[in-house]
Amino acid sequence: MTTVGILGGTGPAGQGVGLRLASAGYDVVLGSRDAERAEGVARGLTPRGAGTLRGASNEAAAAGDIVVVATPWDSAVATVSALRASLAGKVVISMVNALVREGRELIPLYPPRGAMAAQLANALVDSRVVGAFHHLPASEMVDLDSTLDADVVIFSDHADAREEVAQMVEAMPGLHAVIAGSMSLASAVEAFTAVCISINIRHKAHSYVKLAGLNN
Amino acid sequence: MTTVGILGGTGPAGQGVGLRLASAGYDVVLGSRDAERAEGVARGLTPRGAGTLRGASNEAAAAGDIVVVATPWDSAVATVSALRASLAGKVVISMVNALVREGRELIPLYPPRGAMAAQLANALVDSRVVGAFHHLPASEMVDLDSTLDADVVIFSDHADAREEVAQMVEAMPGLHAVIAGSMSLASAVEAFTAVCISINIRHKAHSYVKLAGLNN
Repeated sequence: MTTVGILGGTGPAGQGVGLRLASAGYDVVLGSRDAERAEGVARGLTPRGAGTLRGASNEAAAAGDIVVVATPWDSAVATVSALRASLAGKVVISMVNALVREGRELIPLYPPRGAMAAQLANALVDSRVVGAFHHLPASEMVDLDSTLDADVVIFSDHADAREEVAQMVEAMPGLHAVIAGSMSLASAVEAFTAVCISINIRHKAHSYVKLAGLNN
Repeated sequence: MTTVGILGGTGPAGQGVGLRLASAGYDVVLGSRDAERAEGVARGLTPRGAGTLRGASNEAAAAGDIVVVATPWDSAVATVSALRASLAGKVVISMVNALVREGRELIPLYPPRGAMAAQLANALVDSRVVGAFHHLPASEMVDLDSTLDADVVIFSDHADAREEVAQMVEAMPGLHAVIAGSMSLASAVEAFTAVCISINIRHKAHSYVKLAGLNN
């Protein structure tokens, strides 16, 4: 069975992805700087399906076959850099968004390489970094009874890794994979998360992106 | 009746917005540097509803009560700067995206002020600039028989102008207005157009954005 580790997996975004990965049959390790905390969070989540979910350290999560980065944006590079050897040769999924609150809005920040996925790719030259899971409402993700039916926009400079992540996403309940293209699209995908969350704040909603008009 | 002028209105994007504005009851002037060409294009479009559609010069279009900027991104500032006096005091809608083709993708460009709407706002200090109509598939927009049901993400630093544009959008067939917030979101909204078009190229589709989960 494929193991997926989630660095910073105890936050709302990481929990939702972990729960739905476990429900898709993966063995998920929710990682945290605080392994005990991660164990407690994992005990509160009940996947439906063949997979498993447990909490552990970020180091243990980094041992997964595939690793998801779900840390806050301002600790993402430091977290993965310390785990570079474990992550070498693997598909590493960045779901990190650099956002900051300004009044009633979240606004996008553009790191020096344009996007957080590009920052991570630069820090992990021996991994294949893929961007995914950016626009998802955490409260719906963590509720397997929700009517979530969201499109996950996927980008990477590694075509094989994009396909691998797309297959993983397709197996997850409530999610549909849409490959957008290369890392050149990273800033656009990541920044749009600020639009989704700002709309949610303004309209008191939990909206997510559907790309209508695709033949699927 | 409210008149809407569209600068650069003879391109695919401008035509679609013009047709659906006329179908919503507005009197639309499709502007072009070449007024004769605009007249020809307008004759090829048949709105359904109480509005009208005609082609004219960009100068004539700039005389509208509301003005939409639909020029190519690299001529947008020059076009509006020459018409600044006509545009003073008005709501000016930017549907401009700075994009460039790179292989099989369109990728976003970030102008010095972050977004084209911000470039236009800077050039038009006496107008109220609103961003809208960025993610719409031109081929569906221009076909009133299409099943288009798209969300139009609206942003501006002028709350009253945002509301005015939202009402206009709601009157247009196939479109639904979603106010996102301020000009701080401009780059994120504009850049996402590159993602939509890249997905369309890759998946041979005419996709558009729906924000599922909104209560509307």
